[in-house]
Amino acid sequence: MGETGARTSMTNKNSHPPVDGPLSGIVTLLTDFGIDDPFVGMVKGVLLARFPEAKLVDLSHSVPARDVRHGAFWLARTHGWFPAGTVHLAVVEPGLRAAPRAVAARVGLHYFVGPNNGLLSTTIDQAARAGSSPIEVREIDLGRFAPGKSSPSRSHHGRDLYAPVAADLAAGRLPLSQVGELLEDVARSPIPQAHKRMKMIEGEIVFVDHFGNLVTNVDARMIEEMPNATAYVQKRAIPMADSYFDVDPGEYVALINSLGTLEIARRDSHAGSSLGVGQGATVVVG
Amino acid sequence: MGETGARTSMTNKNSHPPVDGPLSGIVTLLTDFGIDDPFVGMVKGVLLARFPEAKLVDLSHSVPARDVRHGAFWLARTHGWFPAGTVHLAVVEPGLRAAPRAVAARVGLHYFVGPNNGLLSTTIDQAARAGSSPIEVREIDLGRFAPGKSSPSRSHHGRDLYAPVAADLAAGRLPLSQVGELLEDVARSPIPQAHKRMKMIEGEIVFVDHFGNLVTNVDARMIEEMPNATAYVQKRAIPMADSYFDVDPGEYVALINSLGTLEIARRDSHAGSSLGVGQGATVVVG
Amino acid sequence: MGETGARTSMTNKNSHPPVDGPLSGIVTLLTDFGIDDPFVGMVKGVLLARFPEAKLVDLSHSVPARDVRHGAFWLARTHGWFPAGTVHLAVVEPGLRAAPRAVAARVGLHYFVGPNNGLLSTTIDQAARAGSSPIEVREIDLGRFAPGKSSPSRSHHGRDLYAPVAADLAAGRLPLSQVGELLEDVARSPIPQAHKRMKMIEGEIVFVDHFGNLVTNVDARMIEEMPNATAYVQKRAIPMADSYFDVDPGEYVALINSLGTLEIARRDSHAGSSLGVGQGATVVVG
Repeated sequence: MGETGARTSMTNKNSHPPVDGPLSGIVTLLTDFGIDDPFVGMVKGVLLARFPEAKLVDLSHSVPARDVRHGAFWLARTHGWFPAGTVHLAVVEPGLRAAPRAVAARVGLHYFVGPNNGLLSTTIDQAARAGSSPIEVREIDLGRFAPGKSSPSRSHHGRDLYAPVAADLAAGRLPLSQVGELLEDVARSPIPQAHKRMKMIEGEIVFVDHFGNLVTNVDARMIEEMPNATAYVQKRAIPMADSYFDVDPGEYVALINSLGTLEIARRDSHAGSSLGVGQGATVVVG
Repeated sequence: MGETGARTSMTNKNSHPPVDGPLSGIVTLLTDFGIDDPFVGMVKGVLLARFPEAKLVDLSHSVPARDVRHGAFWLARTHGWFPAGTVHLAVVEPGLRAAPRAVAARVGLHYFVGPNNGLLSTTIDQAARAGSSPIEVREIDLGRFAPGKSSPSRSHHGRDLYAPVAADLAAGRLPLSQVGELLEDVARSPIPQAHKRMKMIEGEIVFVDHFGNLVTNVDARMIEEMPNATAYVQKRAIPMADSYFDVDPGEYVALINSLGTLEIARRDSHAGSSLGVGQGATVVVG
Repeated sequence: MGETGARTSMTNKNSHPPVDGPLSGIVTLLTDFGIDDPFVGMVKGVLLARFPEAKLVDLSHSVPARDVRHGAFWLARTHGWFPAGTVHLAVVEPGLRAAPRAVAARVGLHYFVGPNNGLLSTTIDQAARAGSSPIEVREIDLGRFAPGKSSPSRSHHGRDLYAPVAADLAAGRLPLSQVGELLEDVARSPIPQAHKRMKMIEGEIVFVDHFGNLVTNVDARMIEEMPNATAYVQKRAIPMADSYFDVDPGEYVALINSLGTLEIARRDSHAGSSLGVGQGATVVVG
């Protein structure tokens, strides 16, 4: 359970791991379990059995099945609205032949528990780019937290592995330093970074929201450096504006959304259906 | 922040505004955000960051997108089942060219926070007709509660404006009197009132519920004045009964539902699909 | 309110009813109400009005409408993950001509409130087979808990009858012994038991989960007695394995799932759609 000592470039430069901060008692849940089946309910049962004072909040259980990049984006863009000291339990786990590789992490003042498959890496990258947050990532010691799992198929990792660790972290009885070994690196998320090429930004649609708006991976800061930009989706030029309502009903508009990224909307309508594009489609700004 | 003094006919006749009552610590949420996206989660994050002891309860996030009348009906018919001193956060906001006009209100022993677009007016009208509840409606002072919102598009009003006000009201640290100026009138909801014409009641279907039952805007009290009435939907005569089970399986029945309004059901079946009618269709009782 | 005295073979052999154990303050909710309509919200309002400290957890509100067997299976297989002293409020009520027959029960260290229509009987049978849990089932005294319900149609039993009883039990102010008379027997669930015939197990699909996996009623213990077994669905032979990932993508696999029953899955795919089978289809193991 000792530390390997060396911190990687991914983590911050402090020679000592950060001391665990005050805890909010909140555990958020982000999964691809859906809410029809009682799988989320069982996770909550375990959380409350181990930490009866836990305040549980659903972030979403509608990550498309096995879509790690989608979950990674949501986690990175939304966890910061919760109080410092919140534990975020995230499970989107597309399949393992072997034992799971599970991680617990601290990024700034927030804690994360989930699979080491890229789900947390967008959050970590975002914090690493910002440069100021202490980052500490540890591999969960399965021998300690999931002992005697003879039949992997019977195991519901959200319930049997991640929930106990999240509950104990949130309750303050498990310091992050005791979860397991420091990790040199975490699995990468498949979310591509939006990038600049020839004065143009190339990004892509990460998901289509409930209202049909196309949410992209182009961060607001990239747009801010390009006054008078226009967005392009399938060669259609879409003007940038401050608000959905700077255009007439039925018109397309590009704007910075409440997640802090570029979004393509169609006023009072469903842009995704109208344009016939969805997740993964290219968006260019220039 | 001072009061304008005069109370309007919409509000009660007390010359002094009601003193804030005891608070339950509960905040309910009613939106058209859906639960797939993490937008509701962010609202809850802000509520808990400002008021960690808040007890959050989802009323529904499935108000059809931008359907203010639907949300207004649900809010009016369901809020009363919560304890006195509950704050109801309701957001169905079909689009604004300008800054939002936001209100906070007390109706009887309940508090409400949301847009001034008709979403609250069915609740207020209902209380005004009953005549006994103190009613106080105030426009939220945006300069104070949403300062420096330079880019309206980045703003998620549920998260950035309504949640902070709701949290502070529920926590008891923001008296309603300090939210902003008293409002002379609130925006009207587009829900038509059921009305009597030639001894017949004319109403309409407000929504089709999960079981396919047609929920109307005809209040139980109107029906009680008409013993031996029959309901008519698309010229089909449907007998009134006390219960779904006073008719045989597959038969239609009209009854007073648990929301206190007239409902058309088809026993063990889906009345909406069977009759081919939905929201807005006319229902006559006579 | 006195006891009938004799305990039936369904219940345990103790001559004294069990003493109520410590309570967790948690109330879980399992219904077929869906989450679009605000019916669940009203139930929670009543629970919190009567027991403000209640911790409410949704088990699922997506039991298919009126599908008692589906709800019964979920309740039996999932309640045990919650802490001892939890009250489980379950409502799937396909229709009553007369007053509801409502029950409250203790099974082991868990409490249950709901209709006497089979929804609780799978849980009770499961505990009775295990043999060790104290079981106590009482019919809720409607004269006491639902007085003056003149119009049954206006009643939302989840809200008006089951929620008050569940809240009072969870709050510790209503001992189970005061809920009503001991019941000699409860209504049976229509879930058939998987059974052995000619060295083969015959079971059926109870539901298709969010990922398309076919969940059956064949308990893990029946399978454990049959090493080297193969599962058959529509004459297709499906090999047993320990995990979804013991087969290649696109291949079918049979395994013991996290609910403790046999499940048929198709790796990285939707077994239900692929096989064209659903609830009620026969599964054979041999």
